[in-house]
Amino acid sequence: MLVLVINSGSSSLKFQLLNMETEEVISKGVVERIGSRQKAEITLQAKGLKVKEEQEIPNHRVAVARVVDGLLTGDLSVLNSLEEIGVVGHRVVQGGTTFDHAICLDKDVISKIRQYSSIAPLHNPPALAGIVACQAHMPGIPQVAVFDTAFHHTMSQEHYMYAIDYEDYKKYGVRRYGAHGTSHKFVAGELAKAMGKDIRDLKLITCHLGNGASITAIEGGKVVTTSMGFTPLEGLMMGTRSGDIDAAAVLYLMDNKNMDTVQTDDYLNKQCGLLGVSGISNDFRDIEAAMDEGNKRAQLAYDMFVLKVREYIGRYVALMNGIDGIVFTAGIGENDDRVRKSICENLDYLGIEIDEEKNAGCRERRELTKDGARVRTFVIPTNEELAIARETVESLIKYPCDCLSKDDVQEDDF
Amino acid sequence: MLVLVINSGSSSLKFQLLNMETEEVISKGVVERIGSRQKAEITLQAKGLKVKEEQEIPNHRVAVARVVDGLLTGDLSVLNSLEEIGVVGHRVVQGGTTFDHAICLDKDVISKIRQYSSIAPLHNPPALAGIVACQAHMPGIPQVAVFDTAFHHTMSQEHYMYAIDYEDYKKYGVRRYGAHGTSHKFVAGELAKAMGKDIRDLKLITCHLGNGASITAIEGGKVVTTSMGFTPLEGLMMGTRSGDIDAAAVLYLMDNKNMDTVQTDDYLNKQCGLLGVSGISNDFRDIEAAMDEGNKRAQLAYDMFVLKVREYIGRYVALMNGIDGIVFTAGIGENDDRVRKSICENLDYLGIEIDEEKNAGCRERRELTKDGARVRTFVIPTNEELAIARETVESLIKYPCDCLSKDDVQEDDF
Repeated sequence: MLVLVINSGSSSLKFQLLNMETEEVISKGVVERIGSRQKAEITLQAKGLKVKEEQEIPNHRVAVARVVDGLLTGDLSVLNSLEEIGVVGHRVVQGGTTFDHAICLDKDVISKIRQYSSIAPLHNPPALAGIVACQAHMPGIPQVAVFDTAFHHTMSQEHYMYAIDYEDYKKYGVRRYGAHGTSHKFVAGELAKAMGKDIRDLKLITCHLGNGASITAIEGGKVVTTSMGFTPLEGLMMGTRSGDIDAAAVLYLMDNKNMDTVQTDDYLNKQCGLLGVSGISNDFRDIEAAMDEGNKRAQLAYDMFVLKVREYIGRYVALMNGIDGIVFTAGIGENDDRVRKSICENLDYLGIEIDEEKNAGCRERRELTKDGARVRTFVIPTNEELAIARETVESLIKYPCDCLSKDDVQEDDF
Repeated sequence: MLVLVINSGSSSLKFQLLNMETEEVISKGVVERIGSRQKAEITLQAKGLKVKEEQEIPNHRVAVARVVDGLLTGDLSVLNSLEEIGVVGHRVVQGGTTFDHAICLDKDVISKIRQYSSIAPLHNPPALAGIVACQAHMPGIPQVAVFDTAFHHTMSQEHYMYAIDYEDYKKYGVRRYGAHGTSHKFVAGELAKAMGKDIRDLKLITCHLGNGASITAIEGGKVVTTSMGFTPLEGLMMGTRSGDIDAAAVLYLMDNKNMDTVQTDDYLNKQCGLLGVSGISNDFRDIEAAMDEGNKRAQLAYDMFVLKVREYIGRYVALMNGIDGIVFTAGIGENDDRVRKSICENLDYLGIEIDEEKNAGCRERRELTKDGARVRTFVIPTNEELAIARETVESLIKYPCDCLSKDDVQEDDF
């Protein structure tokens, strides 16, 4: 079966077309700067070719039209007909308390996703725009929503609650939801396989370290807790996000910088983190290059990032009273041997020790465990598109799925 | 030498008069509801007697006058003359980046404390009011400020920084300062003594668990990091404080509950924590009583509190790559064997195991370590007044100290 995976952001739309018999990517691409005054940038890859072009793309519907066009026509075409696509899988960030697994999109599911836009205003609306656009262009193909939050549904209440007024938790749904669930689930499953163990017998920590970064404690295959919270702002220090911070410090900054809640959200999500501390970049490669030239703020940003990851590893080891395996994934986790070394240094009390030689230069799936260490440490590249495609197919098999009709979607979801 | 310790809050003033040769408390008391429309409640204890009375106390100057009167006259008098007092030690919450030890109060020190009122608006102004009042009533006696933040000065930058814009850190002083430093220092010192080791050779975790609660990691006698941050709001779940929370969740609550920054600060500090979650009380005894009657929200509050303490223990073990000793202190830490048991359960991976029999009913200084455990666990009652008195005397010996003159203080510090 062919699965089209759609990851629709506020001004971008990424896609992959996968053949699920071989899990091979047949075509992929991204449309960037959707709705911008500048022309959008479109990148398509298929058949070993790569094409870039610029074109005006006013909205997600036109973006999907362009993707469909690329799949069907031109040098990079891989389909004779859209009917060859068995199902479309959409990444949806926020599934709230409703969705603990991927699910076929119908009117009710769409309504819930729309409802959760209030707690994920940056993420759910563009996902809906992608869904509506696919309904318009591929009305005969079932569509599935795969939620970033679904894997974290197993958190128990004492883990997902904040210590706020309980009535506010109930009324406003303010609690930990987590994110990156698809990635954490994927690498945890791969880690258990790599360890040759049943995931139900394991205590695992998955470190998804990219521009967005989160860590998850997984016991018996189920999430105990995760570092992202009500939103992806909480937890680790990230490219541009502050991560954990005293709420009173935020209020103090609001007063002194004269920011309203929208500006503050923007500040904490886009001007802080590695970028804010270093003053240089949100990209770890730039941070390390500056460090090597003696830049102290870059060094500070690096050290803070590393400490925070180590702290989260420690807290999750404490919560699970142990750890069998730990995995590094995503941009930094997969590719940056230096930061992996820094994180794992001086964690032998917890049983984590990596072999410097195995770690050095590693950018691929590999075990890094030092001989004799109690905890097994791996690098496993994440593959969110493949994970979404797998969950999409699984959902299609398990649950009944009709195609979306025009009546199921709302034009104003664009 | 006699030392008068003053702990001056917004509407209360606590004092103890100690004989530092014996470290004995000669007289102590508290004035509550200062500046209230209701009459203030005054409690004095000395010579084995205890007196309570009600009287109008409009401000801290009158409160200090009342204390002085009680020390000199009536059934509970313990002094013939105020000149018998060698020094007054004041608890000051926020010493910012300036004060890494207790210091004699002079115009410059007062000016700095006043300056730090901007980041501790609830705490520094009443401390100043107490200082000004003591200057007025005891002009011939040196006065020392003992800072809650001083012990935490050893935090390195990567530990005290938040991942915000570095320029904002510099401009507004938004960083981790910690609190309860006097208590953490005191119990860490006592813990090392109890272990029969030099504190310079130890990795310690001090758990100050009261209505306000914080945890500190101390390596070689120096604070690595601590759970309270820019303000005492951050960190553990407390009686009425939320502790850690996604900053975006706070912004969301502000928008939805239509709260400004002052209201939000009040909400997070006074309406959350154990009280907010349980809906019953900020007092752990009430929470446990309700739990025992099957109240689910009380149980949830209890479980959340315990988890958070365990998480902080784990993160600090990771940061220090080990732990030799851990101590429980303050209201909950000293008296609540049930919560100590819950916290230490399932921490044997970290080496922490307590003996149930030793723990049961323990409300005094005692080692709880289970035979064979790698980490030594103690209960050590804190004594902030004694700690302040000790630091006050130490400061008087080490650093020159003149008495405050009327010109050094400002009337508007009342």
